Amino acid sequence: MTSSAKESNTHRGRYSEPVPTSNLMYDDADFPEFEFFDDQAMPRSNAPSRDALSVVKVDMCQSINKPNHYTVAYDIKNLVVRRGKQFIIRITFNRPIVKEDDFQVEFVIGSNPSPSKGTLLVVTSGIRKGSSWSGTILEEQGESVILGITPTANAIVGKFRTYVAVIAGNIIQRTKRNDETDLYLLCNAWCPKDAVFLEDEAERKEYILNENGIIFQGDVNAVSETDWMYGQFEMGILDACISILDRCRIPISTRGNVVQLVRMASAVVNSQDDYGVLVGNWGGDFSMGKPPTSWTGSAQILLQYVNTGVPVCYAQCWVFAGVFNTLLRCLGIPARVITNFNSAHDSTGNLKIDLIFRMDNSQDRRHTMDSIWNYHCWNEVFINRHDLPSHCSGWQVVDATPQETSDGFYRCGPSSVNAIKDGLLCHPFDCGFVFAEVNSDIVCHRRDRYGTLSAFWVNKTYVGMLICTKAVGKNERLDITHNYKYLQDSPEDNRTMDRAEEYGCERDHSELKESKMSVSISAEPVQMCQDVILAVDFQNQGDLPKTVQAHLSESVIFYTGVTASHVKDYDFTVTVPANQMERVMLKVTTEEYLPHLGNQVSLRFVVTGQADEYSLTAIKVVELQTPHLTVEVSGQLQVQKEMFVTASFTNPYSFPLQDVVVAIEGSGLISYKTRFYSVIEPQASYSWTESFIPRLEGQRRIVAVMVCSNLGRADGVIDVEIKARDDGITDL
Amino acid sequence: MTSSAKESNTHRGRYSEPVPTSNLMYDDADFPEFEFFDDQAMPRSNAPSRDALSVVKVDMCQSINKPNHYTVAYDIKNLVVRRGKQFIIRITFNRPIVKEDDFQVEFVIGSNPSPSKGTLLVVTSGIRKGSSWSGTILEEQGESVILGITPTANAIVGKFRTYVAVIAGNIIQRTKRNDETDLYLLCNAWCPKDAVFLEDEAERKEYILNENGIIFQGDVNAVSETDWMYGQFEMGILDACISILDRCRIPISTRGNVVQLVRMASAVVNSQDDYGVLVGNWGGDFSMGKPPTSWTGSAQILLQYVNTGVPVCYAQCWVFAGVFNTLLRCLGIPARVITNFNSAHDSTGNLKIDLIFRMDNSQDRRHTMDSIWNYHCWNEVFINRHDLPSHCSGWQVVDATPQETSDGFYRCGPSSVNAIKDGLLCHPFDCGFVFAEVNSDIVCHRRDRYGTLSAFWVNKTYVGMLICTKAVGKNERLDITHNYKYLQDSPEDNRTMDRAEEYGCERDHSELKESKMSVSISAEPVQMCQDVILAVDFQNQGDLPKTVQAHLSESVIFYTGVTASHVKDYDFTVTVPANQMERVMLKVTTEEYLPHLGNQVSLRFVVTGQADEYSLTAIKVVELQTPHLTVEVSGQLQVQKEMFVTASFTNPYSFPLQDVVVAIEGSGLISYKTRFYSVIEPQASYSWTESFIPRLEGQRRIVAVMVCSNLGRADGVIDVEIKARDDGITDL
Repeated sequence: MTSSAKESNTHRGRYSEPVPTSNLMYDDADFPEFEFFDDQAMPRSNAPSRDALSVVKVDMCQSINKPNHYTVAYDIKNLVVRRGKQFIIRITFNRPIVKEDDFQVEFVIGSNPSPSKGTLLVVTSGIRKGSSWSGTILEEQGESVILGITPTANAIVGKFRTYVAVIAGNIIQRTKRNDETDLYLLCNAWCPKDAVFLEDEAERKEYILNENGIIFQGDVNAVSETDWMYGQFEMGILDACISILDRCRIPISTRGNVVQLVRMASAVVNSQDDYGVLVGNWGGDFSMGKPPTSWTGSAQILLQYVNTGVPVCYAQCWVFAGVFNTLLRCLGIPARVITNFNSAHDSTGNLKIDLIFRMDNSQDRRHTMDSIWNYHCWNEVFINRHDLPSHCSGWQVVDATPQETSDGFYRCGPSSVNAIKDGLLCHPFDCGFVFAEVNSDIVCHRRDRYGTLSAFWVNKTYVGMLICTKAVGKNERLDITHNYKYLQDSPEDNRTMDRAEEYGCERDHSELKESKMSVSISAEPVQMCQDVILAVDFQNQGDLPKTVQAHLSESVIFYTGVTASHVKDYDFTVTVPANQMERVMLKVTTEEYLPHLGNQVSLRFVVTGQADEYSLTAIKVVELQTPHLTVEVSGQLQVQKEMFVTASFTNPYSFPLQDVVVAIEGSGLISYKTRFYSVIEPQASYSWTESFIPRLEGQRRIVAVMVCSNLGRADGVIDVEIKARDDGITDL
Repeated sequence: MTSSAKESNTHRGRYSEPVPTSNLMYDDADFPEFEFFDDQAMPRSNAPSRDALSVVKVDMCQSINKPNHYTVAYDIKNLVVRRGKQFIIRITFNRPIVKEDDFQVEFVIGSNPSPSKGTLLVVTSGIRKGSSWSGTILEEQGESVILGITPTANAIVGKFRTYVAVIAGNIIQRTKRNDETDLYLLCNAWCPKDAVFLEDEAERKEYILNENGIIFQGDVNAVSETDWMYGQFEMGILDACISILDRCRIPISTRGNVVQLVRMASAVVNSQDDYGVLVGNWGGDFSMGKPPTSWTGSAQILLQYVNTGVPVCYAQCWVFAGVFNTLLRCLGIPARVITNFNSAHDSTGNLKIDLIFRMDNSQDRRHTMDSIWNYHCWNEVFINRHDLPSHCSGWQVVDATPQETSDGFYRCGPSSVNAIKDGLLCHPFDCGFVFAEVNSDIVCHRRDRYGTLSAFWVNKTYVGMLICTKAVGKNERLDITHNYKYLQDSPEDNRTMDRAEEYGCERDHSELKESKMSVSISAEPVQMCQDVILAVDFQNQGDLPKTVQAHLSESVIFYTGVTASHVKDYDFTVTVPANQMERVMLKVTTEEYLPHLGNQVSLRFVVTGQADEYSLTAIKVVELQTPHLTVEVSGQLQVQKEMFVTASFTNPYSFPLQDVVVAIEGSGLISYKTRFYSVIEPQASYSWTESFIPRLEGQRRIVAVMVCSNLGRADGVIDVEIKARDDGITDL
């Protein structure tokens, strides 16, 4: 609306300069190479005298600094260090320095740098006071000086430009801009003064340094694992992460504050509002991009985004969470991906998921706005919340999936997990929303002909039934439900619920008469293209036999709980003797559900029933299991030696698979590669081999994923132990 | 970026319907006029039978409801009521009703109305359960029924459509859409269950019903008063306020929540982000619109905005606050305009206003980013904060002036005044920012030749020296500084400051050696075009005489503290005997400052000095007083009778006034009118008379304002008592 020229005119009475929001400079140079202190006075001589001090070389000492700062794995030519901890640089002058020599090292970020904003840091040789980063001369070796420099533990995270300036008389002479001396500064989970300090070394290794992860999906009774390559150390990723923050226009001066940083970063991972990294797509048509299930990790997505400048198509919650996790770990912020099974998406901001049914027991989708996702993935970051009471420190929920706007943008958190557990919803940010995701009650209403709703069934345990993440140091599932909730109906739980209500959460208080009749559904795990066998159990706790008019509704659903396709309805009657259980076995054949599946793998069964005055409801989601790819490696399993990986698959079905895309990736080993097969006939096979040269040693993982237009996803994985180089040299 | 069609496709797996954000419907009609319960079944007869019940007339009973709901003053043809309190409607049928008759009243707002969102309210005749608004038949009179309806105290605020439906058999027959029965629902400060409940009747009269206000401006030592016509009851204003919320796309279902409502409303009053009501302009060139000083009230601004659909040029803080106050009072939310003198605008989010000086004591404007506004205006709203601990309830700061973005948008608050006083900055929203506005320390730094800063002077009392608002029921100033702060350095104040620091406020802890030398500046109030006489007092508390090398810098400044024009520098030396004070009198002549003034009226004097080891600083802002207009009335001073108002002025200066615009306005009396005079020669006069017909009785006010291109603002005011109509009828 207003050009920046106009803005600066109408705001002349307010600002002297625009607020910097990028790591880059606006102008060609930060400082002049020569500077005179006094404009009026002439320099004493036009050229520095013959024995004047001047800088010959600045060495960022990568081979010493990187191991000390746990940044060896970054595939980048520059020095990467963590704040709050000393690193060294070696400055070589034209001659040995003497006591009177005055020089300073200047670190600069963004345009218009200023000491009061933390964007210009001056480290002196000790004869004068510098700014907040401390410096000390550790050693003098002939013409060389080794300087130890310690950034503050709340310093700005990003890419600094480095200058060395020599002051003689009234002249400052600076080194020229040299991008080889650029310095990347990260958060430091090893530093007790840093807000992201994490005490346990095993946890730091997992939550900062592990490039591989497992994201849990599926159904609470049949949890599946998806491998995800975070790849935070891969070539180009650190630069990509910083350029994303720049793009998001996060003011440079706030990038030392982790709370603000992660909140703003959660907004930029999705494309809403700000044209950020990933475009969500919860439909079934992915023809304008790649299906969310086809990704093997974050690196490809981040690189595509920064290379094209266009949001990447497409993502669903675990893709948002995977990419966000990479960004966080890459910047040194402890992060993990969480899965919440039966996640409530409440559109009204109360604690009720309202499901509306018609008088004939069928679901009224037009009037049902809320939904329950089979699972939802978000991230946790570990932050000492200096902005909140101390018990709010620790793990914080952040969520990049665009569910609802938080205070105007699609973003969520950081929201203290401890505060959620205790119902302390009065602290920023978004505690109420996350609280509802894990604690909502399901309330089923019947809508009468006048449009009036009456509740007939309430379930207080279905939502947030299991919250889990990958365990530290092993590929296992860690149940962290207890981090979010006390035991249902315990005194602590009641206190939490009361408090949440005090802070504006509207809970269900429907007075339902106690029902003597109930129904439940169970099913064994089912492979794709097998028939589904349901056991529907009707329980009669009354002293009279009851006849139930029952209705089964079967749908294919998205993992968001929204119906993709309606499969069938089925009415049946069952009589349950007093104080007994009656089981009805129902079969849904492959032929019935297969035409409705598309890309989805979730079937939802809802049984409703009426037995005189009692209403009964049960919901069951069945996830169809898909087959695995075979992944094998051969070759020398050593850094810098050639190796091979082979992915193979045989179509076990009686129909051809079409438009098949197979992808392979292994952090530190092989970058994202894909291959296309237009059709794989029934019982036909493929076998695809790629060669690669490992970059990093140790326990590593390669994943392979296959997607096609007429079936869900198949995947495979192999773990390999890569030996170090024979000469013991680590490439930096 | 995505068309709505594309959005709905990619999000098919997530939402069934878009989120309504407007009071209007999307479609032509909410409901069909005839509805059959069962699509399969035919209606029993094609037309209702002869004695079937049908609605003849729906009367909203304005003359009874409006006085009961304190909404008589709204100049609008529809019924306006407040939530949480019963209103009545009279329904006339074709015959007296009998016990079996079934009918319901339906209130609907926005598109896609739903009972679970609070956007469809069904009030029944009592034989069935309705939704949350309660209804009862108060009286039956022949064919007429008088129904009492009580909206819930947290109902959505806005414009509801009203339908009456008669149910007979399986047919519903509804009244047609009729905009005469549309119902405006407001917040209710008289209702204890409403979050905006205010106990005191005098306060309710002031903060909800008073259409006139005073906004304090100027300097802490010479506070000036500006009259502002809120005009919340004027024709078109209530519709304008609702359409602004629609434009802001505030989801309809959240408009019952006052906290969310005022936060989002604070964003839409400024044009940033959302193309809202007012464009800020803190420069000196207002040629593309009207100068901020030229407005007399809010009505003209709001009407211009909704009529043109384009943000109105131009505003500064008191205009944003005045218009926001109108919007709030118009919707029934208790609101008042606050002025904070010496308001800190801290751009780094710490508690320090950093002023940078060069080594020669002159100010280094390039490196000074923070500023102190002579005054800043914001609003307070009274809300019981159900989302926070109970001590956070009461007055809340909201600020529509676009100072800094709050969590991504230009908006601010609601921020609990009690929380600010106690340093409880851990609660939403924006407590830290407001806390800094009233509590920052001024830290003067000297910047050495290496770019290093060292603090040399700290002032902990200058910022937020006086916070005030108009008193209840009288045109006086009420000092509310104590609402925001404890006594400086009291134990409570120290506890507040410690707590603020705990929650991340960075305070000044410069260790300055105690100075035995100090300086202060005082000046008498000065009329425009009079010379300014400054008394500069140097105080020596040491036991040795001291000679001060002093420097006076004089500038014309914007009220934001930013320099508009530099007037002069002056060096002088003064010797102060031991333990004595030495006064230096300095004169600045009209001839010196007048060429620099432009539209501004603030002169800032900064004295800095050096006396051996001691640095001295003092700042003084002098506001030039402008002359008054004469405003007189004649005529009958009675509702519906003709009256006259005359504004007159004589140019007292020796130079001509150019491009003179005079404006007149009086809420309930005369709408905003302007007249233009291209030039008023020295000693020349004008006298301008307008006729008008008073709409509302009681104590009323008319203001007149004059602005011109080469002088500040002049204004005048008259209070009149308007008599009621002779026949005692109140027009509704």
